[in-house]
Parts: sequence; C-alpha cells; structure tokens
Amino acid sequence: MGRIVIRGGLVVTAADEVEADVLVDGEKIVALAARGSAEAESWTAERVVDAGGRYVIPGGVDAHTHMELPFGNTVASDTFETGTVAAAWGGTTTVVDFAVQTRGRSLREGLDAWSAKAAGVCAVDYGFHMIVSDVTDASLREMDGLVAEGVTSFKLFMAYPGVFLSDDGQLLRAMQRAGGNGGLVMAHAENGVAIDVLAAQALAAGRTEPRHHGEVRRALLESEATHRAIQLARVAGDVPLYVVHVSAREAVAELARARDAGLPVFGETCPQYLFLSADNLAEPGFEGAKYVCSTPLRPREHQAALWRALRTDDLQVVSTDHCPFCFAGQKELGRGDFSKIPNGLPGVEHRMDLLHQAVVDGHISRRRWIELACAAPARMFGLYGRKGTVAPGADADLVVYDPAAEQTISAATHHMNVDYSAYEGRRVTGRVETVLSRGRVVIDGRGYVGRPGHGRFLPRGTCQYVR
Amino acid sequence: MGRIVIRGGLVVTAADEVEADVLVDGEKIVALAARGSAEAESWTAERVVDAGGRYVIPGGVDAHTHMELPFGNTVASDTFETGTVAAAWGGTTTVVDFAVQTRGRSLREGLDAWSAKAAGVCAVDYGFHMIVSDVTDASLREMDGLVAEGVTSFKLFMAYPGVFLSDDGQLLRAMQRAGGNGGLVMAHAENGVAIDVLAAQALAAGRTEPRHHGEVRRALLESEATHRAIQLARVAGDVPLYVVHVSAREAVAELARARDAGLPVFGETCPQYLFLSADNLAEPGFEGAKYVCSTPLRPREHQAALWRALRTDDLQVVSTDHCPFCFAGQKELGRGDFSKIPNGLPGVEHRMDLLHQAVVDGHISRRRWIELACAAPARMFGLYGRKGTVAPGADADLVVYDPAAEQTISAATHHMNVDYSAYEGRRVTGRVETVLSRGRVVIDGRGYVGRPGHGRFLPRGTCQYVR
Amino acid sequence: MGRIVIRGGLVVTAADEVEADVLVDGEKIVALAARGSAEAESWTAERVVDAGGRYVIPGGVDAHTHMELPFGNTVASDTFETGTVAAAWGGTTTVVDFAVQTRGRSLREGLDAWSAKAAGVCAVDYGFHMIVSDVTDASLREMDGLVAEGVTSFKLFMAYPGVFLSDDGQLLRAMQRAGGNGGLVMAHAENGVAIDVLAAQALAAGRTEPRHHGEVRRALLESEATHRAIQLARVAGDVPLYVVHVSAREAVAELARARDAGLPVFGETCPQYLFLSADNLAEPGFEGAKYVCSTPLRPREHQAALWRALRTDDLQVVSTDHCPFCFAGQKELGRGDFSKIPNGLPGVEHRMDLLHQAVVDGHISRRRWIELACAAPARMFGLYGRKGTVAPGADADLVVYDPAAEQTISAATHHMNVDYSAYEGRRVTGRVETVLSRGRVVIDGRGYVGRPGHGRFLPRGTCQYVR
Amino acid sequence: MGRIVIRGGLVVTAADEVEADVLVDGEKIVALAARGSAEAESWTAERVVDAGGRYVIPGGVDAHTHMELPFGNTVASDTFETGTVAAAWGGTTTVVDFAVQTRGRSLREGLDAWSAKAAGVCAVDYGFHMIVSDVTDASLREMDGLVAEGVTSFKLFMAYPGVFLSDDGQLLRAMQRAGGNGGLVMAHAENGVAIDVLAAQALAAGRTEPRHHGEVRRALLESEATHRAIQLARVAGDVPLYVVHVSAREAVAELARARDAGLPVFGETCPQYLFLSADNLAEPGFEGAKYVCSTPLRPREHQAALWRALRTDDLQVVSTDHCPFCFAGQKELGRGDFSKIPNGLPGVEHRMDLLHQAVVDGHISRRRWIELACAAPARMFGLYGRKGTVAPGADADLVVYDPAAEQTISAATHHMNVDYSAYEGRRVTGRVETVLSRGRVVIDGRGYVGRPGHGRFLPRGTCQYVR
Repeated sequence: MGRIVIRGGLVVTAADEVEADVLVDGEKIVALAARGSAEAESWTAERVVDAGGRYVIPGGVDAHTHMELPFGNTVASDTFETGTVAAAWGGTTTVVDFAVQTRGRSLREGLDAWSAKAAGVCAVDYGFHMIVSDVTDASLREMDGLVAEGVTSFKLFMAYPGVFLSDDGQLLRAMQRAGGNGGLVMAHAENGVAIDVLAAQALAAGRTEPRHHGEVRRALLESEATHRAIQLARVAGDVPLYVVHVSAREAVAELARARDAGLPVFGETCPQYLFLSADNLAEPGFEGAKYVCSTPLRPREHQAALWRALRTDDLQVVSTDHCPFCFAGQKELGRGDFSKIPNGLPGVEHRMDLLHQAVVDGHISRRRWIELACAAPARMFGLYGRKGTVAPGADADLVVYDPAAEQTISAATHHMNVDYSAYEGRRVTGRVETVLSRGRVVIDGRGYVGRPGHGRFLPRGTCQYVR
Repeated sequence: MGRIVIRGGLVVTAADEVEADVLVDGEKIVALAARGSAEAESWTAERVVDAGGRYVIPGGVDAHTHMELPFGNTVASDTFETGTVAAAWGGTTTVVDFAVQTRGRSLREGLDAWSAKAAGVCAVDYGFHMIVSDVTDASLREMDGLVAEGVTSFKLFMAYPGVFLSDDGQLLRAMQRAGGNGGLVMAHAENGVAIDVLAAQALAAGRTEPRHHGEVRRALLESEATHRAIQLARVAGDVPLYVVHVSAREAVAELARARDAGLPVFGETCPQYLFLSADNLAEPGFEGAKYVCSTPLRPREHQAALWRALRTDDLQVVSTDHCPFCFAGQKELGRGDFSKIPNGLPGVEHRMDLLHQAVVDGHISRRRWIELACAAPARMFGLYGRKGTVAPGADADLVVYDPAAEQTISAATHHMNVDYSAYEGRRVTGRVETVLSRGRVVIDGRGYVGRPGHGRFLPRGTCQYVR
Repeated sequence: MGRIVIRGGLVVTAADEVEADVLVDGEKIVALAARGSAEAESWTAERVVDAGGRYVIPGGVDAHTHMELPFGNTVASDTFETGTVAAAWGGTTTVVDFAVQTRGRSLREGLDAWSAKAAGVCAVDYGFHMIVSDVTDASLREMDGLVAEGVTSFKLFMAYPGVFLSDDGQLLRAMQRAGGNGGLVMAHAENGVAIDVLAAQALAAGRTEPRHHGEVRRALLESEATHRAIQLARVAGDVPLYVVHVSAREAVAELARARDAGLPVFGETCPQYLFLSADNLAEPGFEGAKYVCSTPLRPREHQAALWRALRTDDLQVVSTDHCPFCFAGQKELGRGDFSKIPNGLPGVEHRMDLLHQAVVDGHISRRRWIELACAAPARMFGLYGRKGTVAPGADADLVVYDPAAEQTISAATHHMNVDYSAYEGRRVTGRVETVLSRGRVVIDGRGYVGRPGHGRFLPRGTCQYVR
Repeated sequence: MGRIVIRGGLVVTAADEVEADVLVDGEKIVALAARGSAEAESWTAERVVDAGGRYVIPGGVDAHTHMELPFGNTVASDTFETGTVAAAWGGTTTVVDFAVQTRGRSLREGLDAWSAKAAGVCAVDYGFHMIVSDVTDASLREMDGLVAEGVTSFKLFMAYPGVFLSDDGQLLRAMQRAGGNGGLVMAHAENGVAIDVLAAQALAAGRTEPRHHGEVRRALLESEATHRAIQLARVAGDVPLYVVHVSAREAVAELARARDAGLPVFGETCPQYLFLSADNLAEPGFEGAKYVCSTPLRPREHQAALWRALRTDDLQVVSTDHCPFCFAGQKELGRGDFSKIPNGLPGVEHRMDLLHQAVVDGHISRRRWIELACAAPARMFGLYGRKGTVAPGADADLVVYDPAAEQTISAATHHMNVDYSAYEGRRVTGRVETVLSRGRVVIDGRGYVGRPGHGRFLPRGTCQYVR
C-alpha cells in the first residue's frame, strides 16, 4: 500500500468517461486530476501504474455468489478463498454471498457459520445477504438486528418446496418486516410447487435428461412467481423487491409493468442467461448437466428481451449466481435423474469480461457496463460511495482494463475451483490487467499478488435506490 | 480567471455524492481531491470559495429557451443578454435556444439571424437547435451541414397549422434525414389541426377566456400526436425522437410504452407542468393569460404522472421552455380572444431552485435533480463531458448551492425581463450562491459579476444516448 | 301441462327481440310465430297467457348457488326446496349448485350426499358442479366419470387454507385432468394464505368488525390469484378456466388481458358486487355482517369496472353465489371476530330483477341482460339449447316479465329462507309475472303453483364456449 | 312468392342452432316450429324446400361493396346488377355500397348518382353508406338529412391525399356531427400522407412492382391511423367509430385496447386478409397486381391476429370490400408503376363460403360464422331484426347451405364480372344451395332465378350496438 498513481487511462464510471489520472493513498482514492495537468504531474507515489490505452474502472461488485454452498449431499466447489481469488482475477473486488438459515435454526447461526467460512481467507471484500428458510416470529425479529449489523438484504424462495420455499404468507410477513427495518427482500421467483408436479411427471415419463430440467421449469412459472412477489410487495406496503436471476422474457415484462407504475421493484440477470441458452442444456450425452441452474437457461429468443431490459433499466444488475459444481462427481450425481443434478454454474471470474464483450457487440454502452456490473449492485446493496465508482474518498478498488486484449475462456486457464467452464473456448475482447483492492494491488499484470484475509467483511447500508 | 479552489462542499453529480474539493484552472476543472486530504490542502489558488455546508454541482443546462422569439406581432421579452444573465442567477450556465427557419427561407438564414442576436451578448454559453418550418429537398440537405457545424437537433411542429406545422410526410422526411446525419428530431406533439377546430368552436361560442386555451388543447390531442410521432420515427428506421414539453399523463404513457419496447424515444417536461396547473389558467380576470403556453397547463392530477415518469426515467429532461411575454402590452393582446395570447412563460431563472424544492419535497433524489437538470440535457444534446458534470477536464461550469437557504420567488426580485412571475410569492428552500461559467465567477454571493459576451456558442455533438 | 300459448309479448333472447307468440307443448317450446300472423292465431291451447306489454324471456340460469352448505358449525339456511322456490319466484328456472368433496373422502360421496339433498324437493331443474377439496390420484380419476355423468365442472379454491385450498400443484393437476376430460375448472381466486396472515394481524390488533373482513381480503390478492390461475391454466395446456365471483377491477384487468390474448378464460360476477359495496360492510353496529362474503364487497369505484367488463364481454356471466345465513344465530357467530362470520349472501331470488334494473339504468342492453343471466351461463355449463333461450325444441322454461312494474325488495316479502335482505328497501322497476318450468306454470301472477320434485337433475354437457 | 316451408334443416343463427322448420309467407318469416312437431307438419305451402342435412341460415349481409366505383380513369367492373347477382349466388342477400361525394359537390348529388345506378337493377336488397370527401359546413348539415333518410353511416378517409383524404380537423368535425345525429363514422385508417412519401421514394428508386404497394403501406401506418381515429372519436365525445378493412395485427391491438376501455369502437376485416397475404402481392410477373388493394395484404403472420380478434370480438364484422377490376386493361394500367394499379379485389360472391371454410378449419364456430357475416353487420348498420337473423317477423332472406358440398373457386365459374379470381383453384367445403330474398327464391339449386329490380333500397336505422 501507500501512494499509487494510475496514469494515462480513461476513467469510466456509470456516469462519466474522463481522461484523468487517479491518486490512491492507503485504502482510498484521494484525487482525480486531468491527464497531463500540472496537478497530475506533480503527484509522487511509490508506484505508478501506466494505464495508457486502458480503462480505469471501479472494481466489480458481484452481488450474487454462493461459495461453499451445501446442495443436496454435496457442496459448491469454490471456497471463499478460491472463489474470491477468481473474482479478483476477473476484476471483481466485492462479492456479496448468501448466508443460509437452516430450517429450525436461527438466522444468527446461519450467519455465524458463513462468517466463519469467510473470515481470514478472502482475497477481496465481501458482504452477506441472509437466506431466510424459516419465517417465524423469532426469525422476523432477528432480521432487524441483522440490518443493524450490515446484513441488509434477505432472500426468500418461492421455489424448492420443503427445502427453502416460503409460502405466500411467510413471504408477506418477511416483506412487512423489511418494510419496517429497511431491509431489501430478494426473491427467487419460480412457482416451485407447480414445477415439482411437472418434474415428477417428466421423470415418471422417462424424461430424465438435463434438458428436461429446463423444460419443466416453465417460463410462465417464473413470470407467475415474479408477478406474485410484486403483488405481495404491494400488499406489504409497496416495499422494495429485488428479483434475482431473471431469465424469462415474460418475467421481464412483469418487472417492466411494475416499474412503469413507479413501484420499487428491481431485477437482476446473469451472464449465463445472456450468453447461453436451452441449446446448451440439450447438448448431447450428459454435457447439458454443466448448464443446470435455476432459473434455467431459456431458449435463445429470450436473450433479446434481457438485453433490451438491461438497456431500458427494467433490469438493473448483472450478477453471476456463481455456484460451481464439478462435472466429475458432482454434476454426475444427476445422471438418469435431472432433479438430482446440483443447481449452479461457475461464473464469478468472467462477468466483467463477458459484459465488456457486450459493449464490443453493441448491446450496451461502456458506461452502462460499469453501471450494471459495479455501480448499480453497489447502490442496490448499500455500498455505493465506497464501492462501485471512481471518486475521491471511495475505496481504492480499481481495475485497469485493456479493452483491446483478446483472450479465450477455458477451464484450463481459469482460476475457479471447478473442472469445466460454461464458456469453454469462447473468445472475448478485453482483459483485466491490474486490480487494486482497497489500495493494494492484488492482480498485477498476469499474476495474483494478494493474500488471503486481505478481504474484509463489509457491513452494508440499506438500498440506496430507495429514499 | 486563473486558479480557483472550491473547498468543503459536497460535490453532487448525477452519479455521485462526494466530499471533495474542486480545483479549477482557467476554463476547466482540473482536479477533485478528497476533502481534507494532503492533496487538497496543498492546492494554491487565486481564489478560494468556501462551500462548507453547500453543494457543489454542475451548472444547469437548459435545453429549451426562446430568447427574443417573434410570436404574432410581438417578441419574447428577454434578449439573449437579459435571458442569459437571468439564467446565470438561477445556476444555469448553458442554454440551448431555438433558431427559427422562416417559411420560404433557408435554415441558414434562420441560424444566421439567431447567431447574430446572441453573438457577443451572452452571459453564459449557448447553443442552438434549429426549428424547421419548411421541409423541402433544400432544407433537408441543409440539415446535414448544420449537424456538422454543431447544430445537431431539429424541432418540428405538429401544432400551429399554417405557421410551423409540418405534416406527417414532412415530419417523416425530416426523421429519415436525421437518421442519416445523426441529428435528433424534437417534436412539439399536439394535433394542431384538431385543436384549431376546437379553438374556433370555442371562440364562436363565446368561450374566449384564457382557461379555454387549455381546454381546447385536449390532453388526448397531445398523446395522439406523441403516439404518431413515435410511429413515424419507427417508420423512418427507429430514429431517435425527443418530445418537448410533455404535460399530459396520457402522453407520458405513450412514451413509457415506447421505451419499454426499447425504442430511442425521449421526453422532456418543464417546471410549469410540475408546479402549476389548469387552476392557474382559470384565475379570475385575465390573470390566467400569464399561464398560457403550449402544451397547456393540465389539471393537477396530471402532476403525479409527470413526477413518477421523472423518477422512472420515462421522462429524462426538465427544461423551461422559457419564452417570456410581459403581461402589460403582450399577454394583453389576447383579451377577448385566448388564441391571440402570446404563448409562453418565463422560467429560465427558477428551474434549478424548483427542482431542488422537489428534492426537499421528496419527489426526486438529489442525484436525480442533477441528472434531470444538468447531466441528461447535456448528454441528450451532445455536450456531456464538457457540460453537465463535475469531473477533471470538464468546463468549469459550477454552482455552489446552499440547500438550506430560503427564498421567495417574485417579479420584484427576479432578473428576467418580464413584468410578472408565474411563481409569484412561492417560498422555496435552496438558493444559488456562487456560479462559475467556464472558470469565471459570474454570480458571486448576491451579485452578477459577469460580462456580456463571456458566453460562447457551443458547437454540439450528436445525442449521446444513442450509440 | 299440455299446450300453452303465450301471446302478445316481446320475445327477448341474447340475440333477438321479436314480436312473436310462443307455443308450448308438454315440456318443450314447439313454435314461435309472428304476432298476429295466421299461424299464431290458429294455435289452440289449454291455456293462453297474455303477455301484452310484457317480455317473454328464457328462464334464468343461476350457475352459482349453495343450498344447505355447511360452513363452520352452521348450514346455509335455504334448503334445495326453499331455495328453488325462491329461484322460481325470481324467474330463475335452473340452478347449478355445488356438491362438496370432504377431505379424505371421494368425489362420489360428496356428489351422492348433495344429490340426496336435492332429490325430490326442487321446484325447478338443477345441476351440480363438484367442489374438489382433495386433489389426489383417486379424485383426479373420479373427475372423468363425473364428466360422463353430466357433472362437468370442478371448483378449486385458492382461498381457505386447511379447508378447501388446493395448492398450485394440485390446481395444476386438476387443470391437466380437465384438459383431458373436457371438464371446466372453476377457481375461487384469492390468495388465501396471504389473506390469513392479514386476518390474523387484524384480529390481533383488535380490528374485529365486519368491515375488516373486506379490508384484509385485498383486491390485489384477488387479482394476484386470478393471474396465477390463468398462468397455471396456460401451463396445463391452455385449458379453459372460469373465475367465480370476480369483484375487483384489478382482477377484471387480468381477465381482459388473458382474453385479448385469445385464452379460453371466463369470468363471473354477482349482483352484490354490482349494487353493494364496502360501505355496506362498514354499516354501524354489526349490520355489516349481513354483507360478509368472499370475495368481499369492494369500494364503490370497482363497480364501474365490473359494469364495463359486462359490456365488453370480459365478464360473461352473472350468478348469485346465493349462500344465505340468517343474521340471528348465524351471522351473529362472528360478533367480535369477523373471521367467524359465515360467508355468504342471499340472492337467488333477485338476480333477474336487479339485472333488469341495470337495463333501466343504462348499464347494459336488454339482450345483454338475457345473455348474462340465461344464455351465457347455459352455454358455459353445457345446457344451451335446452336452457337459456326461447326457440323451438328448447325446454319450456319461460318467464313473462313486466318491465314496467315496480317493486320493493324486502325480507318481509321475499321467499328465501333468511331473515334479512341485502337489498332491503331497494325499489326496482320490473317484475316476474308468470314462470314456466319445463312447460309447467310454477309462478302464476303472484302465487307459487309448482310442486316439490318437479325440478329434475340436469346432466350437463361440457362447456359450449370451447370447441 | 307466397308460402314456402323450409323443412328439415338446422337453423343456425348468431345465437342458436335449432332443428326447426321455417315458414315463409310473402316477404317475411312467419314462424319456426320444432322439426317433426304437429305444428310444423300442419303447415301447407306452395313450395316446400327440403333442407335435410343442410343449414338454414340468414342471408349474408355484406356491408362493404363498391359497385361501379370510379377509380382513376377506370371503373370497378361489376355493375349493381352483375354484382348483386353474384352476391345472391354466394348467399349474400344484402349489400351496403358506398355512394361517393365528389369534392366541391354536395352529398346529395353523390347519393342521387349512386341511387340511380342501383335503381331497378339489383337482385337483392341494398343500402348506402356515404363517402364524405369534402367536409364543409354544408356537407355536415346534409349528414343529418341523410341519417333521416336511412343513410346512416359516413366513411371518411385518412388515406388518398388530394382525393378522398379528410384532415384531422375535418374528421373531428364529421365525428362531432355524427355524435349529434346518430350516424356512424367509418374510417379508412391509413396515414396516407406518410404513405405517399414512401411511395414516391419507392418509385424514384425503381421499386415499381406490385409488391411495393404493400411495402410502402406500412402496418405501422395503419395502426397509427387507427389509433388517431380512436382518439379523435374520444375527443368528439366518445362517438362510435367503425374501422374498415383492418389488416395489420398492430391495428387490431389498437382496437382491442380501445374496446377494453369500453369505447364504442368497432372493426371489420375481409376474407382477403384472412386467406391471402403479401406472398400473393409478390407473385412473379405482374400477377401481384391482382391482389392490390388498400389496406394491403400483409405478411402471413398477421392472419393469426385477425382470426384471434374475430374470436375475441375485437373485430366484429367480415365484409368483402368488393371492388373488382379486370386484370386485362384495368389492373394493367399499373404496369411499371404500382401506384397506378386500381385498388380493389373481387369478393362479394365468396365471403360466406370462405368463412364457412374457417368453420371447417376450426378458426371460428358455426354461430360465429353467422354472427360475423350476417347478424353483426346488420346490427352495426341498423338492419337487425329485418336482416341478419332467422326469426318470426324478419325478412325472409334465407339460405339453405350444404355444409358438406365441395367446390373449387374459379373465374371460370364465378358470376362476378371480372376476369380473374383472387382465390383461383381454392377448394372449399360448403356451398349455397337455395337463396330466398324477401321471400322470393333467387337461387334455386344451381340456377339464378331472380330478376333485376327485385332488390330494394333499404333505409337503415342507426347503429344497434350503441344504445
């Protein structure tokens, strides 16, 4: 640490594109000055990073990861250590992971367990959402305390009956409580009860391959649940609602309708829904298992609606829902029964690059890239000002990004602890070059130079989109 | 000019709120540094402006003014000199006015005439849109040249038959041309042909008072024209469209529908539609004439839809449509015949304050205030980067704004050259304290210290919302 | 029985208004002939009914009644005998009541029980829908048999958790089955799980009066469930869906959206939603209990949307949901706890008159009156041709209706077995004069001249709106 | 004439399907009696028509024909004599043609001219709509008189600038007048001004073939005009509006939106939009000219939206817009310039058969066939009761229709005076067998047995959909 100057880059934020040098001192950004100005030239520093021809962008904020998540009888293959190192490689300097309440236990126990997993091992800063699996008077009361501690968002499931699912009354009560304490309710919006009927019918009929995972999780059952969550949020008093991993165009339409009405409803999608499709689920053999996640990959024609919503701000955030399971030994648990395939894809390392590719492809603008990947998730989850922008006083989470470099995504070269890549062989333009996390260089050219435990827990404020 | 440091303020932009000092050198912002940092403290300057407890915001960009506009047999009462001084008083450092093509003459002649009016007298920077009154092969060709010169937006009228109105074929041709040269078509969206029928019927029936101006200009005839303009823009090849002075909720709904579909359609409203209503048009005596403008003031219930659209980004810009006529001798021309009342309200001086009041009232956030009043109009009309933000390299158009000061709007104290105020007696919280225009202090505490001709013509780029 | 001629009336059906005499022979309508024609004049009959100045209309079809329904620890106060006599008085000659499956028992047992209640006592013809309370493999199989026997519609509840509620998986399975056997799924569309949360909160907060029954059953929770039922019907393979007792404008909007999309979705409302409102629920003392039913009465502003939907055919049927409980001893069970008030209103006697009043008031046309009250319910539930029209070959269920007579609705004069009227004191124009059921006069001027057991069970075909 | 009995058929109306015999006496239907009943058997008649295995349906009502219409320098090839004979062959017993006001002349002159053309030559009954080409104070006043005479509908054009086009002010004034006198405004809804720009551009670019006729008449310019007409009708006081020859799904969407809002807005489509498409316009050589009409044939994917709207009642009427021009010598006028091709298709003879084919194909029900082709147009244009149904007292316009007969449509066999068929070679199931017009047999098996002048002018009442 100490003083670092990043010279010659184009500083890109959600709002501005400025030719400015950036001065870092300690953990913070201290100043920006016009490139070539006397002020900029006067800066001295222990280290000068040459960003000529590069972008200088805020570190990415991935608001949806699942490190070490138990799923069935297995566990997501990235630890907080391996996962945050991979995040750093990919230019993401903040992850918000999900602590899980076990049914019959307190929120506190769940949070403590997840805090223990992350403590002392993370390469970049991290925060927690809380998965509420058991809405009771007691767990509702606990929500208030968690908000005070900086765990300000609560995920409820409308899917996975018997495991995570909250019924509509529980969801309503959690929303009411969040309305009082400032928390943000996040919903996994799929009608899990109906899906389970279709899944059982499919399996009984011998339709057991991975692609049936996608087929039984009907798009209409995602949009139905999205609509229902929105209505419950209205009944709870127009409380804010954040719908995770939106994949179906019909669900996007429900969000757009709600937002047109001025409701505080927000939505996230993920790179897999933008770049992959049901065609991947239908890959021959058991290959499709690599792409099993929920909500599922949709037919390609849904992608255009997602891109459009990202442009029109009907979706605000792109997260990864990073939840890796190795093909060997993990995904394989579901051979012969798609319902036993662990749900989740690796992705934390490639979000910034894939979205930059979207800039190259003309789907979004450069500033929108930063908004979707950095500023909006920071703002959504109460981190903005510290994270998500390049401004004096902000944490020095910075990425020097080479927009012209080319790379090929592959399991052979990625840093996530998983034996395949969902994007194997894909060529993309743009690459992370240097990454600072709170003023410390953690990726330097092509090497990881950080250390476990540099990353700290981030107590978060409440949603900054809601006044 | 020279070096100026603004110390201790909260820098508010469309994206950020940062406790930073701002260093100005010459015409430009050179650097921002964290308040109290060694860098900030090290700055020396000829002048230090104390912004403690104040906001430091970008100078306002008013993208819709009509200085010295001929209307019927009279002329709008603010010259470019008086109007831009009033703008400066109100924290607006850029105006984009409308040069007018006379029927049968070239665009060039119109632009030259307006350039002559503005040259050497403006207190702040200014640009021009071009009003196209006569779509011909020749004027279409001229559009290309104007774009190259920095007059990149073209206003077409669907109202005022026989004066400004372009028929749908002309509008379509202008849109097609703009699609080719990057220009932005601005539409006054009211069905003027139908309105003229209703106006004639009203006058024939003795309904001659100012309020009938509002009643014959039916909200449905605004939304109809808005819809029509959008469809023509689609037919022209999905060209961008900017609808000026949106006042009716039904028109907002059309914009929202178009934007949900991903069309490059934009909308502006004005403070008068947000703070005044048809009740003002119905004030006793001939007082209502003060509020005659087109589109007209609407019943109060439209306001909620406008505020909502400003929050949901279905409207992007708040301009003033500043077009002042004195009550005495000008508005009075329409006694006994509302159709003879010159159309227009004074407003350039109060936009920033009224929108800050909206922050105080909870309609919009602080950052959205800056976005609507500074960043978005700059971006819409190709000025962003120079105008509309506070960043190294930008023009030093800066306002130190006291959010706690109270003031009362009145013709007795305002600086516009007009004998009444549309907001007479209204108390607002917030006041402009110091204004810099390209690095020069023009408003200093409570005095105007600028000079005519400081303001320069701004050649503009094309719309920055469109890639 | 025998030959009856109805002379001099205006025959009004859903499609036609014809000045024709009607010849009945035995149980059937045999011929219509132009009034005054030689053919008409040539008819001889045992009885001639003078219908001069009167309408001759099809007997009403009330597709939603609950005679002798157990509810909590009490039972709806009309037996099949008293209820069908009251129906006849009101010009309704067909009722379709709901047989109830008890949880853990078969559909058959429920149907047998209801058949036993009705057998040999009804004044007019009757059919049964089947309430499915327990969706299991066995009850799904039973559905096929019931369709074959003429019980072709199945009601599922999204409200009343623990009593009648089917979860979304059960609802989906019932819909799939109906898709195969031609049955029509009827849904009580309210989110009962969420309502129960709100109800418990209200009671816990001391909000125990009848009006809170309406307040906790939020309109948004009706429209949410309506939307959900529609989506499940789509997932089940675009199967037909009939939503009972629609009361909220938001629910109407969902139906309209579905119908615009061409989906086979249908809706019913009831006179109480058209003529009464939440104001009644809020009547002082415990009077509001008289108006407790589910879905609940809504604020008055919902009425306009319902009337409009009846005109635009977004709602197709007006039934009564007749389910009477005496105020004394029955409604009173809920003093101090609105959740204990038996749900239901008396109404079977007044539907034809109230809808005729709507004709007088200009809400609907005369033909639409007959369509909503006779033809559409007959067609919806597989009875058209026999019931719901005036045509040769149809059952001679006929009403001579005096459109000019005035009457006052009152418990003092009505024939339903209940101690109050929801319309007490209301003056209406129009009155039933003579009623034939299958060729037999059952109401003759002002007297009931039928006999118990004249009414027969009607095996019904499948929905005639679906090809 | 005299007494005719039609025995053994299935009487199909918009509302009912009844096994009944029909007794005709003189010009009227006198009675219906159940098949095989004593009453039916007792009837004596001069003639008995055996309708066993056949349908007995009301004669068709074609509310949109153009006999002998001048277009450019040519005239539509069917006279009122040849055209109405062809109508009779096709089971259509009423046509409503369009009298044309010449610019600068009175409505009266136009009506007189058309009355003269039709007088004494028609095979079936006929009425007139009035085309208003010149909205002036005088022609507006004339409208009132025409309504009184039974010419109760007025067509205004939003297309064909310089010929028929009324501007929005003229359209509004006509609507206002119709609001007062009960007339129904019919709109040709296409933005003709914009279309003319695109047409000129196409021709200038050498895109002169028939298919470009369809391409320049963009679907968006039909829906735009439809939307505009609806808004003007609202401004005029929610007056009824009937949009002719709707062809674009986007236009259907506008109608559906208006109808959902309860507005008295109606729409018609034509068989050519249901059975033909832009593919026909693109047939090689100059063949496409046969299919040139306005609105134009659309790409095939529009058909599904039209069928759906016919089912959902968002479109109410199917007319033909019969306006035949021979290929040789007439259509050929546009070789090398699509804008010179006379606009129009022959069709009056095949509407009933093509719509019956739609019943066979499952697009619509049997009753809906009769509603679209007979009842609804009669009701829309003030003829219902006399025309459009089978009921005592109605005109004896009856068709015995063989639903099982097969035929092949061909210019070689049709009876219209035109040298090609738009449906050449198409096999359809169903054929007209016997046709009565006001009690007289005009088509008997396979021969025309009527006489010129049997058909009489029908003074019409006002729209029966509006109370």
